[in-house]
Amino acid sequence: MTMASAAEPLTIGLLGAGSVGAQVARTLVEERDLISARVGAPVRLIGVAVRDVEAPRDWRIPGELLTTDAESLVDQADLVIELLGGLEPAGALIDRALRRGAGVVTGNKALLAVRGGELAATAAETGAPLHFEASVGGAIPILRPIQESLSGDRITKVMGIVNGTTNYILDQMDTTGAAFEDALSEAQRLGYAEADPTADVEGHDAAAKAAILGALAFHAPFTIDDVHCEGITAVTGADIEAAAASGYVIKLLAIAEKFDGEGAVLRVHPTLLPRTHPLASVRGAFNAVFVVAENAGELMFYGQGAGGVPTSSAVLGDLVSAARLLRQGTTVLEPSEPAEIVPALPIEKARTQYYIDMEVADEEGVIAEIARVFADHHVSIEAMRQPGIVSVDGEVDTDHDNGAVLQVVTHPAQEKSLAETVATLKALEVVRAVTSVLRVEIEQ
Amino acid sequence: MTMASAAEPLTIGLLGAGSVGAQVARTLVEERDLISARVGAPVRLIGVAVRDVEAPRDWRIPGELLTTDAESLVDQADLVIELLGGLEPAGALIDRALRRGAGVVTGNKALLAVRGGELAATAAETGAPLHFEASVGGAIPILRPIQESLSGDRITKVMGIVNGTTNYILDQMDTTGAAFEDALSEAQRLGYAEADPTADVEGHDAAAKAAILGALAFHAPFTIDDVHCEGITAVTGADIEAAAASGYVIKLLAIAEKFDGEGAVLRVHPTLLPRTHPLASVRGAFNAVFVVAENAGELMFYGQGAGGVPTSSAVLGDLVSAARLLRQGTTVLEPSEPAEIVPALPIEKARTQYYIDMEVADEEGVIAEIARVFADHHVSIEAMRQPGIVSVDGEVDTDHDNGAVLQVVTHPAQEKSLAETVATLKALEVVRAVTSVLRVEIEQ
Repeated sequence: MTMASAAEPLTIGLLGAGSVGAQVARTLVEERDLISARVGAPVRLIGVAVRDVEAPRDWRIPGELLTTDAESLVDQADLVIELLGGLEPAGALIDRALRRGAGVVTGNKALLAVRGGELAATAAETGAPLHFEASVGGAIPILRPIQESLSGDRITKVMGIVNGTTNYILDQMDTTGAAFEDALSEAQRLGYAEADPTADVEGHDAAAKAAILGALAFHAPFTIDDVHCEGITAVTGADIEAAAASGYVIKLLAIAEKFDGEGAVLRVHPTLLPRTHPLASVRGAFNAVFVVAENAGELMFYGQGAGGVPTSSAVLGDLVSAARLLRQGTTVLEPSEPAEIVPALPIEKARTQYYIDMEVADEEGVIAEIARVFADHHVSIEAMRQPGIVSVDGEVDTDHDNGAVLQVVTHPAQEKSLAETVATLKALEVVRAVTSVLRVEIEQ
Repeated sequence: MTMASAAEPLTIGLLGAGSVGAQVARTLVEERDLISARVGAPVRLIGVAVRDVEAPRDWRIPGELLTTDAESLVDQADLVIELLGGLEPAGALIDRALRRGAGVVTGNKALLAVRGGELAATAAETGAPLHFEASVGGAIPILRPIQESLSGDRITKVMGIVNGTTNYILDQMDTTGAAFEDALSEAQRLGYAEADPTADVEGHDAAAKAAILGALAFHAPFTIDDVHCEGITAVTGADIEAAAASGYVIKLLAIAEKFDGEGAVLRVHPTLLPRTHPLASVRGAFNAVFVVAENAGELMFYGQGAGGVPTSSAVLGDLVSAARLLRQGTTVLEPSEPAEIVPALPIEKARTQYYIDMEVADEEGVIAEIARVFADHHVSIEAMRQPGIVSVDGEVDTDHDNGAVLQVVTHPAQEKSLAETVATLKALEVVRAVTSVLRVEIEQ
């Protein structure tokens, strides 16, 4: 294991100088005294590995620090900060650092959601610290509280808004009535969404974070393949309007929930929340994560979920922690066996509430017929609402010629039963269309 | 230093079996496998020190664990959990444990707010872990995020609702129009307030927590004597009504704020918050803490602030962390010099916004005269409002015979200037009474 006495500086190698990396470099150079004081020993940034030393950056990194030789840098540093993103070469470089016993700090959610368990095992093997607070929730301290503060409790559910891009888009659609494409363009213009927005709008970024949160919360080796993922591209203005009319807002949530004795369902999907729910008022680029534990009850963590400066705070906090461990000569122990094995369950095993929006015939007995379908599938109805009457072109039609809108909110039911209910409803003659089926989180 | 191999159990001594202690004992007995798995080594509760072994408790502790000999228990345990509260014998027992190198977990805010720095120094001397997450915010992970997650950042302000009793009382006054005394009686009846409510309603409990939060946030040896403390006993129904009419709610806040290059002001007082402020909707026994840091920006932590079961989660999280450190053979290092010295400043140095409620003569030129007083003291006015006209008996009087109510909200100003402004206002002939002066926090 790499160790440094209090006299000789701990050396730091930084991989990547994007928006977060440039801020980390700036702090390590301009605020070296602060970071050294917090560690309790001098620290020194010895190099920044980049692809192109000439590229423009948010902060001008001194030329003598820049290198294109990431491997040599990894081989010299006591502590490696990986901010390259993506699977490779990030994965190989982190592995190389850990095998040397160097501490590693990373914000690489994509990598952790695929190889997190394997890298943690390598870290435990060599006793090297591996920290990754910046991978979920930007500046928000969420992984450390889950791993350490709640280590004497049993977490049952983690649920959060963990992707600022989709939160901004849904927020715009809700408040300005913008269509998805327009809200996306606006987000791109403002720099909140990338030129290729797939990872955000299809929910892949949130799914990686759901895997990381679920793995830590339930002490289980979950990967992104265990996450049921639906993005926001199918959310329409009409969905948002109908939700708003019933007092709901649509948010993209990442949810990891344990069902006792069975396992955990990990899922990312657009979700209806009552406007009074604390997560409903999380706007724009902010993130918030709810954690429910058996003894602690409900906790919420809120803050800036992205951006170079806020995220650099999480990276530097991890750096100080890892450096302190190295300074103390602490060997990170192999994780012990978890107290219980929590397998990943398919989405069919989820139990949640649902909102179903239908166009039905405006005839006597329709509601009874529909209610019967729910009852037959053991899905209990919490509320039914007939907000207005639609014409064939979707406009509100007050003369009842063409049919009625019917909205149903169920009590918690199993995904499988709900899917069967919806299939049966679609086959009914009196149901002209099931226009939307959305999951709902009502309790905090 | 006390160390245990993976084979022999880490022994735990519990001091105190009140509402939190009984829950901690229950978990350590009933969930011993869970806690052992989390630590990575077997743990064993070897004794619970109480004053009266026969007293009824929330959970029936096995008779063979109960003892009245706290000192012997401290001398045998690898880890001591102190939940006695109060200065002594808690202080002497913690000191005794730390000097043996035993780990200590405590939730004793009163003791920490007086001797926290001294006990931390003792812990560093012997290399023993000393954890106290449960001392502030009940189940909410707040101290660890401040100490560790934000260790690479500069915290500028910590502001929170940290006392559930006063929050419940103010909430009742706000929502039901109850008088302070009635709301207090109701809180006592429900068990939210103690028979002697002084520590809560006079703000002493919140002040201890402000000292702990400020000391950790600013790496400074603050004690409760550094905290300016005003309780809620002087808050009247009229204050709350007037605040409500202007869109504000009154909360008891604990605030630790750094003024660059000068120092920090620590204060506890009833504070006006706009109803849209995230802290405004924190109800009943819930707590919430805002933290502002230079890079991270604004963070909020929310959860249950009291109660045996929630608070036991924080104690057990600390226990697992301390036990892991002992298991890893980690020696806690002496804290290094802080990066900067932050002295405690008197309340006169605080800069915040103020709300002033006056009864003034209903004459021409009054507003100009009053505005002049503010300007003379360099206190800038953000808003002025004349909501209604009062008669001598306090009822709204629409014929303007007796005078007008005038409410002023200032821009941030120094406490000293504000005090001088108010003194001058009181001496004006046109000002019949300054009915209330409250500090306001408008920004999140």
